Amino acid sequence: MPPKNTAALLDRLRSLMKNAKHVHEPIHAYIVPTGDAHVSEYIADCDKRREFISGFSGSNGTAIVTSSKAALWTDGRYFLQAEAQMDSNWTLMKDGLTETPSQGDWLCDVLPTSGRVGVDPFLMSAVAWEALNKKLQSEGLDLIPVKDNLIDLVWEDQPPRPNNRIFTQALKWTGQTWDEKISSLREKISQKKCSMIVLSALDDVAWLLNLRGSDIDFNPVFFSYVIVTMENVYLFVDERKLTPDIRTHLRMGEEDKKGVILKPYESIRPELESLMKMIKPATKAWVTPSINYALLSAIPEKERYKDVSPVAVMKSVKSPAEIQGMRNAHIKDAVALCEYLMWLENEVPKGCLTEISASDHLEKLRSQQDEYVSLSFDTISGFGSNGAIIHYRSSPETDRLLTTEELYLCDSGAQFRDGTTDVTRTVHFGTPSQHEKDCFTRVLKGHISLSHVIFPNGTKGPLLDTLARTSLWANGLDYLHGTGHGVGSFLNVHEGPMGIGYRPRPDDIPLKEGNILSNEPGYYEDGKFGIRIESLCLVVKATTKYNFNDKGFLTFEPITLVPIQSKLINPALLSESEIQWLNDYHQKTRDVIGPALLEQGRKEVYNWLIKNTQPLG
Amino acid sequence: MPPKNTAALLDRLRSLMKNAKHVHEPIHAYIVPTGDAHVSEYIADCDKRREFISGFSGSNGTAIVTSSKAALWTDGRYFLQAEAQMDSNWTLMKDGLTETPSQGDWLCDVLPTSGRVGVDPFLMSAVAWEALNKKLQSEGLDLIPVKDNLIDLVWEDQPPRPNNRIFTQALKWTGQTWDEKISSLREKISQKKCSMIVLSALDDVAWLLNLRGSDIDFNPVFFSYVIVTMENVYLFVDERKLTPDIRTHLRMGEEDKKGVILKPYESIRPELESLMKMIKPATKAWVTPSINYALLSAIPEKERYKDVSPVAVMKSVKSPAEIQGMRNAHIKDAVALCEYLMWLENEVPKGCLTEISASDHLEKLRSQQDEYVSLSFDTISGFGSNGAIIHYRSSPETDRLLTTEELYLCDSGAQFRDGTTDVTRTVHFGTPSQHEKDCFTRVLKGHISLSHVIFPNGTKGPLLDTLARTSLWANGLDYLHGTGHGVGSFLNVHEGPMGIGYRPRPDDIPLKEGNILSNEPGYYEDGKFGIRIESLCLVVKATTKYNFNDKGFLTFEPITLVPIQSKLINPALLSESEIQWLNDYHQKTRDVIGPALLEQGRKEVYNWLIKNTQPLG
Repeated sequence: MPPKNTAALLDRLRSLMKNAKHVHEPIHAYIVPTGDAHVSEYIADCDKRREFISGFSGSNGTAIVTSSKAALWTDGRYFLQAEAQMDSNWTLMKDGLTETPSQGDWLCDVLPTSGRVGVDPFLMSAVAWEALNKKLQSEGLDLIPVKDNLIDLVWEDQPPRPNNRIFTQALKWTGQTWDEKISSLREKISQKKCSMIVLSALDDVAWLLNLRGSDIDFNPVFFSYVIVTMENVYLFVDERKLTPDIRTHLRMGEEDKKGVILKPYESIRPELESLMKMIKPATKAWVTPSINYALLSAIPEKERYKDVSPVAVMKSVKSPAEIQGMRNAHIKDAVALCEYLMWLENEVPKGCLTEISASDHLEKLRSQQDEYVSLSFDTISGFGSNGAIIHYRSSPETDRLLTTEELYLCDSGAQFRDGTTDVTRTVHFGTPSQHEKDCFTRVLKGHISLSHVIFPNGTKGPLLDTLARTSLWANGLDYLHGTGHGVGSFLNVHEGPMGIGYRPRPDDIPLKEGNILSNEPGYYEDGKFGIRIESLCLVVKATTKYNFNDKGFLTFEPITLVPIQSKLINPALLSESEIQWLNDYHQKTRDVIGPALLEQGRKEVYNWLIKNTQPLG
Repeated sequence: MPPKNTAALLDRLRSLMKNAKHVHEPIHAYIVPTGDAHVSEYIADCDKRREFISGFSGSNGTAIVTSSKAALWTDGRYFLQAEAQMDSNWTLMKDGLTETPSQGDWLCDVLPTSGRVGVDPFLMSAVAWEALNKKLQSEGLDLIPVKDNLIDLVWEDQPPRPNNRIFTQALKWTGQTWDEKISSLREKISQKKCSMIVLSALDDVAWLLNLRGSDIDFNPVFFSYVIVTMENVYLFVDERKLTPDIRTHLRMGEEDKKGVILKPYESIRPELESLMKMIKPATKAWVTPSINYALLSAIPEKERYKDVSPVAVMKSVKSPAEIQGMRNAHIKDAVALCEYLMWLENEVPKGCLTEISASDHLEKLRSQQDEYVSLSFDTISGFGSNGAIIHYRSSPETDRLLTTEELYLCDSGAQFRDGTTDVTRTVHFGTPSQHEKDCFTRVLKGHISLSHVIFPNGTKGPLLDTLARTSLWANGLDYLHGTGHGVGSFLNVHEGPMGIGYRPRPDDIPLKEGNILSNEPGYYEDGKFGIRIESLCLVVKATTKYNFNDKGFLTFEPITLVPIQSKLINPALLSESEIQWLNDYHQKTRDVIGPALLEQGRKEVYNWLIKNTQPLG
């Protein structure tokens, strides 16, 4: 697909940047962030403003347009894709490379002193606003909240905001009622001398109230805000989303029974302002890092308590019911994926499968499993060179025939009512080269090194990231993405606040027993191939001989149980303990997934599983 | 030694906290930081105010006194020592443990709302001031600069400020003239759109001007500030420190030849204020993290550019001449240390050596080497249980007889004109227990794992810290200090801005070729023993098969070459590559230190070295 022609759009945007109807004074730059008003990573089509203006469709990026320049920042997963999708009006800024200026530095560099930088305050997180504002001010520039969204004004066929029905997530899957969650939330709020909290992250709202929705592809969430005070719970949502069931679940209209109070979605800012007028003396309103600047600015500075969302922290520690659900979901997912891998081994040599037709079949296999809802993200079905595009999405233009000649990387997952999955396997249907095997084995060594590390309570993820890289580094190799992200239970496939990566994480918290994270080192050669091995892991107590300072020690238990292709492994590069880990992993995969395959009458797949979980050597 | 009785002192301090002669309004808390006006780690006796008021003599800690409470924060190296040195008026706050409140949280907790917290603004870094001020303000408390230092007012026999002569560091050791350093500094300043920089770190000043001093034990620095503008270099120093040589070296009084301009030490704040009035339009003054709040507050907020000291960054990358000097210094140091270890093996069994008499002999051996100036820090000569006190200093009260029954930890170093050393070896003069050997071997595995890691340019130290811990963690063990610090060349033994540790480092920068850092994992059992293995390492280019993204890869080369006692090693716990590393290290030690021993006619020590560098197995 040719890059999007953005010349005319940029002209119209640039004229709006000087149009007194929308800006008091002309602005010299306009920032178009990726996110929506909830700082969501995945966004609805109506919110894809950055993609609309730049043509770049990746999940992360920021566009900045000045009178003469248009620049887009994104990270290493997307360098190739962004270069392919953007026309010559745009400059790609490669985040993470030392030579790349930050957005603030770049603005200070290209704009005149006392230049004005505009942005829609609902679309920039307070954290991002304050960091950028501080930088700009220090150089004499101003950051201006622009009420009208200038992209919406130039976007003629912008789709409407989705308004799908909300449904409840049953207690058997959550393990906790929303009342229980609210009361432990209120405890945390008062511990910090706050008397209210503003929740704008859509998955925080969904988890807190045991509700789910379908406004955003792949993420079972719905457009809403919640404000919790010591007395009341306010839900800001379009009431067309509500069924009688939901009203009953939330005890709406039953204030006497401490039911949830319904408010219009659009009324959040004025309602917040009036709640602030009534806030208890000497208490504060808790605002989370994901709050947008429009809402933050409704709270007097003295009355803000800023900290990572306590709901995000509670949500990141899965309940026993959620853990059980995640295990079940991963068994079903492995059944589908094992059948897929077996099917590929049979079909690829016939030479009629492509990335898209193959992944369509995988989706069909997943959809046959109980409680299947949807994919948890766009399947990355990357053959050969396409595998090197870290967040590749096949399109008719890029679709490649699967052959026995190159590596195939498949990163996929599903939403089941009982849990969310995210798994990557890289396989070869012919004879891999020595180089491919060596690279795969080094990625595997990183995966194992992180998987069996034992670490003390209080350890933050970034301190573990290096373990997944040292064997690649030893050969002068690396990968430009993090190693692990949290995963929701029938919620977003990317979930904070903790994570495992080399970039500093301002809101990072130590890993805790009950967290579920991905372990996904990789290696990518542009134009050649991509390798990634990803399993989800549960953080569990470790048994150690000693217990220094009574800290308590933790480790990871893989809950993704899918064979790792042994033909891609060079055993000479593995230590005894690494071989032991691999054999134990395959034995467990056989023990857990085997019976499920037989129950489902998939004998052929069962035989494939036995064949592909033989101990190494 | 019994803890210091601080009851009367605290009474007098508390009355001064309400005395209108010194504070406009009474203050509810008074903070006594460790540092001097230059945020030095090692300080002159006249600046040991925190030790004077609390009795705790460790190198890191902050005392806070309220009307009813007195609390002291310090890190894991000092928990035991602080508990031993402080009387019942004081509460120890164990930094680094999750349950320990931060100073800000604690103040907000114990003080009334709108409470007033006082501190001497010259004794708190601007960074610390702003972080604390933000926290206190958010809870309605005020941080107050108190002009008169209240500790000085209650400290009757406070020693005078030292005023020793300054001397020059010759070009053969620095490799760069001060003029060359000034011009590359000015380049860096203008790159950041600044027209001046304020340098308050004593080692920054000494390094920049190729000068050294002896105002502070162990650190060859002198009390001074420097301000560099695009036209001039101002040195703020007591002129009694200056010899004619120094005036010539700095071309003082030769403004036409761009000589350094001399100003009185005390005049820094008024001079800074007047320089700020003349600062170039649209430029800023560069202030470093170590600037104290008194100086920062002399610079209008709009005209501050805050960043890590470019001098500290330049200083951290050793010149070829400095690297050669450091190598020479380490050969001389190893000669002394090898003789010491041999001597201990002979003398300890006779039962007449103590921690102090032993380390006195070590100091004598070091002092016999060329260009010896002093120790680089108080030798830690810790036998058995004393070895568990991480920054232990023997005193007549604690001095222990060295026997063949327990572990002996010796952490020591010297200042030579050509370089600074810092080395720790742990040895046993009898038969170590299996537990001691297992712990020692796990510490060694961490030391090796960090020592032979290959990592890409751009990697910051904290990402490597975990490598030194995983083998301890695997057994439920850990240590409560960082793993590596920068070291100056004939300068401070602790030097930033980079480092290797698990705590976040706000001013951290990536490791660079030419850095010299320590590699010093340890393990400590309170009341039983301490183990630490420390060598200094030079960051060097690594040769790798590939070079991902042309990043370039780095690794560590040990420059400390002293045998690691093999009787403490359990070979069964070492991998082949670890044994290979150890044998290579001992071979290199033999090749480099052996000839030096023979040159110095120390044949007996040479034979000891050969015996103690035999390959393992």
